[in-house]
This record gives sequence, C-alpha cells and structure tokens, in this order.
Amino acid sequence: MSFTNEQAYCVATYRCFEEKADFHKKAQSIAVGLTVGSWTDIPEARKAEMEKHLGRVVSVDVHEPAAGESASARYADIRIAYPDVNFSRDIPALLVTVFGKLSMDGRIKLIDLSFSESFLSAFPGPKFGLEGVRGLLGVQDRPLLMSIFKAVIGHDLPALKEQFYSQAAGGVDLIKDDEILFENPLTPIERRVEACMEAAEQARRETGQKLLYAANLTGPTFGLLEQAKKAIGAGANALLFNVLAYGFDTLAELSRHPDIRVPIMAHPAMAGAFYPSPHHGISAAVLLGKLMRLAGADLVLFPSPYGSVVMPREENMAIKDALLTGDAADYRYAAGAGSALSLKQSFPVPSAGIHPGLVPLILKDFGTQVVVNAGGGVHGHPMGAIAGGRAFRQAIDGCLADVPLDEYAEGHPELKAAIAAWGLKG
Amino acid sequence: MSFTNEQAYCVATYRCFEEKADFHKKAQSIAVGLTVGSWTDIPEARKAEMEKHLGRVVSVDVHEPAAGESASARYADIRIAYPDVNFSRDIPALLVTVFGKLSMDGRIKLIDLSFSESFLSAFPGPKFGLEGVRGLLGVQDRPLLMSIFKAVIGHDLPALKEQFYSQAAGGVDLIKDDEILFENPLTPIERRVEACMEAAEQARRETGQKLLYAANLTGPTFGLLEQAKKAIGAGANALLFNVLAYGFDTLAELSRHPDIRVPIMAHPAMAGAFYPSPHHGISAAVLLGKLMRLAGADLVLFPSPYGSVVMPREENMAIKDALLTGDAADYRYAAGAGSALSLKQSFPVPSAGIHPGLVPLILKDFGTQVVVNAGGGVHGHPMGAIAGGRAFRQAIDGCLADVPLDEYAEGHPELKAAIAAWGLKG
Repeated sequence: MSFTNEQAYCVATYRCFEEKADFHKKAQSIAVGLTVGSWTDIPEARKAEMEKHLGRVVSVDVHEPAAGESASARYADIRIAYPDVNFSRDIPALLVTVFGKLSMDGRIKLIDLSFSESFLSAFPGPKFGLEGVRGLLGVQDRPLLMSIFKAVIGHDLPALKEQFYSQAAGGVDLIKDDEILFENPLTPIERRVEACMEAAEQARRETGQKLLYAANLTGPTFGLLEQAKKAIGAGANALLFNVLAYGFDTLAELSRHPDIRVPIMAHPAMAGAFYPSPHHGISAAVLLGKLMRLAGADLVLFPSPYGSVVMPREENMAIKDALLTGDAADYRYAAGAGSALSLKQSFPVPSAGIHPGLVPLILKDFGTQVVVNAGGGVHGHPMGAIAGGRAFRQAIDGCLADVPLDEYAEGHPELKAAIAAWGLKG
Repeated sequence: MSFTNEQAYCVATYRCFEEKADFHKKAQSIAVGLTVGSWTDIPEARKAEMEKHLGRVVSVDVHEPAAGESASARYADIRIAYPDVNFSRDIPALLVTVFGKLSMDGRIKLIDLSFSESFLSAFPGPKFGLEGVRGLLGVQDRPLLMSIFKAVIGHDLPALKEQFYSQAAGGVDLIKDDEILFENPLTPIERRVEACMEAAEQARRETGQKLLYAANLTGPTFGLLEQAKKAIGAGANALLFNVLAYGFDTLAELSRHPDIRVPIMAHPAMAGAFYPSPHHGISAAVLLGKLMRLAGADLVLFPSPYGSVVMPREENMAIKDALLTGDAADYRYAAGAGSALSLKQSFPVPSAGIHPGLVPLILKDFGTQVVVNAGGGVHGHPMGAIAGGRAFRQAIDGCLADVPLDEYAEGHPELKAAIAAWGLKG
C-alpha cells in the first residue's frame, strides 16, 4: 500500500493506553476498520480502486512506562490519516468517522486533529474574529475587558438593566449573559436586549466607550436562527452560545449564516464532560480550540488556570495557540511551510476566578490578544461594581505602561482597593 | 429554607471525588451557585420571592475509602434539585444548568437525572417506540434481528443492493446503514434508499417478511429535516442518526416533527467521549438510556458486554432499564408510587461482537424485548451472509423453544456452522 500526499486526508491523533497491545497492529486496525472495513476481504481486482478510501497510519509513538511506573501507564500516540473522499465536509461527519465507534474502544482519547486544505476550505471560520471584534469596539491597543452578570435568575428587567449599567459604567468592553439564563417571562430575550442596550447607551454617553452585549441564544435547535434574528433585531450586537449542548455544526451553521451579523461568543458549558480525563474524551485544545475556531466562534471562553475552575496552564496555552495561530501547518495536514491559515483568529477568553491583581499574570501568559473576563472580580469590588470595572481597566493600563501594579495602584484607588481585597500575583 | 414538593424540580445526581472536601458544604454551594448565585447576597425583603428559584440539596451520601484504598477513592453521591422555573423545557437548557460549568469543576460525573412531571410532559418521546416498531414489522413474539452492512465506503449502488439483499434474504428484520456512510456520489441517500428498498421487496417476495431499512441521516444541522424528508420520500422506512454529534435536542426536534413518519434509530457514535471515565463525563444510563428515550429515539444502539467494544454488564442493564421501564418513579422526581411513565419504550440494541452462539446469553440478559444486532456474525458466516441471517433466526427460535442450542443446531445446518465457527455461550 503506497501512501501519497496527492490525495486529501484529515488526520486524527489518539493517545491510546494499553498494557500489552501491539500498537502498530492496533493502528493498522483503526486505519482499515474505520474506512474500508477490511483490506484482505477486498478482491484483488478492486484494490486499486479502493485504495483511495483506505485510512493510513501516519505514525505510532510508543511510550513504555518509566521505571517505577505502573504498566497501566503504557501508551502510544497514534496518528491516522482518513481520506476526505469518505466523509462530507462537516464536523459531525468528521467526528463520527474519526471518533465515533473508536471512542468506545478502551482507553483512548482524541488529542489532536488536522484537516486537509479542501476540508478546511468548506469552513469560513469566524465572521468577525479577533480583529473584527476589535474593529466593532474601536479598541486596537489593549486587552479587552469583559464582565459577566452576577445573579440573573429571578431578576426582572429593571434589576437587570441596573446591573448592566453598573458594569458598563466601569469601562468594560463586553458584557455577557449568564449561560444559564434561558427564555423566561421576567426577562425574555427581546425585552432584555432592549433594556440592556439602553443601559449600554447611557453608559456610552458617560464613558464615550462602545460595548458589545452577548445575549444568550437558547431554545430548540431548529428555532435558533429565528431566535438569533429576534435578538439582533432588538439590538443585540453579539450572541452567547452554549456550543457543546448543540453540537459544533449548529455553531457552524449559525456563524456562516448571512443574517447573523454579530460576533458569536462560544461558552464552554459541558466541556468538562469531554476533556479532563487523561484516558477518554477529547483534548481541550481540540474541543475548545481548533473545533470552536473552525466552527466560527469569534470569541471562546475556557477555564483559566488561575481560578476556582482550574485547567492546567499547558492546556490553556494549547487552546490559546489553537485560537490564535496564523500558521497553516498547525491546522492543515501536509501544509507547505510558512503558508497562512485561512481562518480568522478567535479571541481567547480565559475565565473563572479573575481579579485585577491577576492581570499581570494573564498578560504574561496571553499577551495583549486576550479578553480579561471577570464576574465576582467586578461585582464583589469593595467599592461596588463600577469601581470593579475601573480597577480592571487600571490594572490593564498599569501593565501596558510597564508599571508594577502595587506602584500604579497608589494613584488609582479602585485598583488599590482591589489589590487589598484579593492580592496581587505575577 | 423550606423545601416543598409543591414546586417542580429536575434532579441531578453527581458522583464527586475529593480527598478532603466537606461534601455537604460542596452540595450547598452547587445548589445555590447554579441557581440564584448567592443566597447571602439577596436582600431579606426579596428572599421569599427568590426561594422558588433556589436549588435544593436532596441528599449527600459520602463514601469514605475502605481500608487499603487510596484517599483519592473518597467520593460522595450528591443529589441536587433544580427548580424548573429556572430553565426552558429543552435538553440543552437542562444540561447546561445541571452540568454546564459544573462539568469543569474537578472530578465530577453526572450519574443520574430525573425530571419533573412538567418537564417530562414537554417531550412526546419515541413516536413509535418498541411496540410501534413491532407493529410496523408485524412481529410480536420474538426478539428482532438486525444486520449491519459490512463495508460500504467506496461501494456503488449495485454492490450495496446485493449486500442488502443477502442480508434481507436470511430473514433479518432491520438493516442499518453504516454510521460512517455520508452523502457521497456513489450512493447518495435517495438512490441508496431506492436500491435497498427494491432489494427488500425482492427478499420479501421470497421470505414473506417485512423489513425496516435505517438510512443514515447526515449533513448540516439545519438541513437535516429536508434530508430526512428526501430519504422518506424515496422510501426509507427508518432513519439512523448519530445523535451525539448533533446534540439531543436535534433528535428531539426530528422525532417530534410530523413529517418524520418513520422510526429513528440512535447510534452511540462518540458516546465513549462521555461515559467510560469513573471521574468525568455522563453515565451510560443517562446518556444512552434516559436522554435518548426522552429525546425520542425509537431504537437505541449501545456497546454490548459481549464483544470487542466492551461495556460492563451492569452499565448495560442500567441502559436497558432506562429504555424499557414503565415506572414513572424511575424518571420522575417525586412521582407517586405505581404511576405509569408517559414515554413509549425505546428498543434496546446491544451491539458489537454478536454471533449466533451468544443469543442465549443476550436473551438471558435482555429477555425478548431486544434487537439482536450483528455485522460480522452475519457476513462472516462460513456459508455466506444469507446463511448468517438464518443461523441467527434459528438461534432465536431455539432459545424461545427452550431447546439447548447445540441440540437445536442438529436439525439446522446454518446454526451448526455458526456454532462451529464461533462457539456457544450461556
């Protein structure tokens, strides 16, 4: 069997744990079993024709347990190339091909995916992306600041509007709905959007600053487009979407639709059902990185390595790289050196447990192409939510001016109070 | 805080592993954090009004590690009741509420869900269900037999038709597409359905037996309904659907749609990304049992405990129970004793590694309300695929006649050859 690169392949990398298996044999059985079924059963006369449908083993890297490690730590990273001709150019088809039945076959985790140029070309990717979001806000030179509603369930429109205003007035760039706020009689989406956009306008008159409000897009799948149009019609200038509860293709369909003229923010709700196990599921970099960007998320939330909902720093950096890289080789199988990736960047939004004293660390880890996202760090500020927003903006300004934050805080009482309350890191 | 049952709640059960945590405190923080956010922050005057939005701790069962067990084995099963008033009556809203952010919060697995009567009433469930499928086939008194195409990728219509006929002629009741067969130029869905239904008709004239052909429903989410109508228009009398690649709500939307006049068979592709870890994800009984039935799957495939893709028997039985139970108490939180569940049954289809000699074991585990499902066990029969189907039907007949299969095989050469090839169990 020859393996030429002339044909288009998508490549899956698996980490596969087995104490005794012949991993090369296992790799072969995956490559054949998930494509043509059986190679030996194919009549000789048909083999030439069937070869283009056959999966290929790209590599098998076996990691034997180190001295003192248990035999159960033995694993191999197996890369299999699947011919594009076998599946349609959508994410469900790709995932069912590479990790449908195989996901149930013992201790195996999908740790990477790369795509053929042709598969990739079927995805317009983020409609706005990082630069587009910056353009809408007119902010090019600093990390953005996002604030999350505190409590929203059981609150009425005036309460929501007041909470919105107190976030906006502090100078935040984006405000998102709580992901657990669904259609409800107190704050239905159109009324909520109207009320919040009024509060945004009021704050803009005072701060001179634009703001994006991501309204939570929820409800039955086949009604999402209508629901989104209602929200946009009422003035929503962004949408929040619980992607994993609906599947990546629904995001892709929404994102590529011409009537969705606003950025989509992907929430990671349910992601913990997939990525944390070392032995099962899908890695965070694939789930919250590559697939979110491919499906067209303009901004992607994921657990930060700083707060209560913790993700190891290494996984965070892998998500960031997947959202920001411009190098086609990171996404495209057999891409030429130095060629540019066709997808716009998705804005990384590391979330949970963020307070102003963490800003130096966030900027060290993520650079300036990041959205600093806070909930309690805004609302819980000792001087109130408006001061909370200001403290974050001061922390960002201090970092960009390269002034140590404890020093910068001397002239900025909101930042000083935040550091006194929550400390300073980095 | 009083906790009355007058209000509607959906209840999630989590298995939560922590070496030192105060699990009662943790349970409280989940119940409050995922509903009203914070109880102490709510002004006294508003508490009466907010109480209906507050989550409640139903129970906390702590399992301390046994002597000799590692501290990391310490866990608690925590049950939290979430007020219906907080979420819309769809599966994404429920899952995002109960296991959105929480899924990322350490070692925690969603192991059970029960629903309020009101939430449940929003779901018509399977349109046909087990009895409906039996009715379409006219078979009431025995387990059904299903056969899976062997290899399909790269095959043209005549080859597919021939393979279909050789399965149908052996007496199988259902034939399903391979879940990795997508829209493709060789066998597009309408042409494929026409060819296969012709083969079904040819077999019916010979065997006198009806047959359901589940065509694989694939492609972009917002086009699935049109794609399904095309398949049904071309004669498909069932559909196969990779539910987890699209989300449960898409199944629910399809299943409840009046134009989907055929049973839907749920494939478990990607399920292994969720259920196998003891510490993360969603249990098989919730994922492939309760949620599939709630979303309206008429038949549900899941890994059998017999074959190469193995699931422990206990988990298999839990899925079966979830698909078949008629007791409302298994689904409904605070259901009255002995009340009947409103959902039709979903047909359980344990799959992978099935050969005729396993039929006694399958019937022992599942009774007669089961679909015996085979791929290699039909196609790999020493006397060919037609004989493969017959061998299974003979095995089923022998079991129902209460004759030991080795004895029954004496008068049935196809069964005898199957047992000689693969052995006999149970």
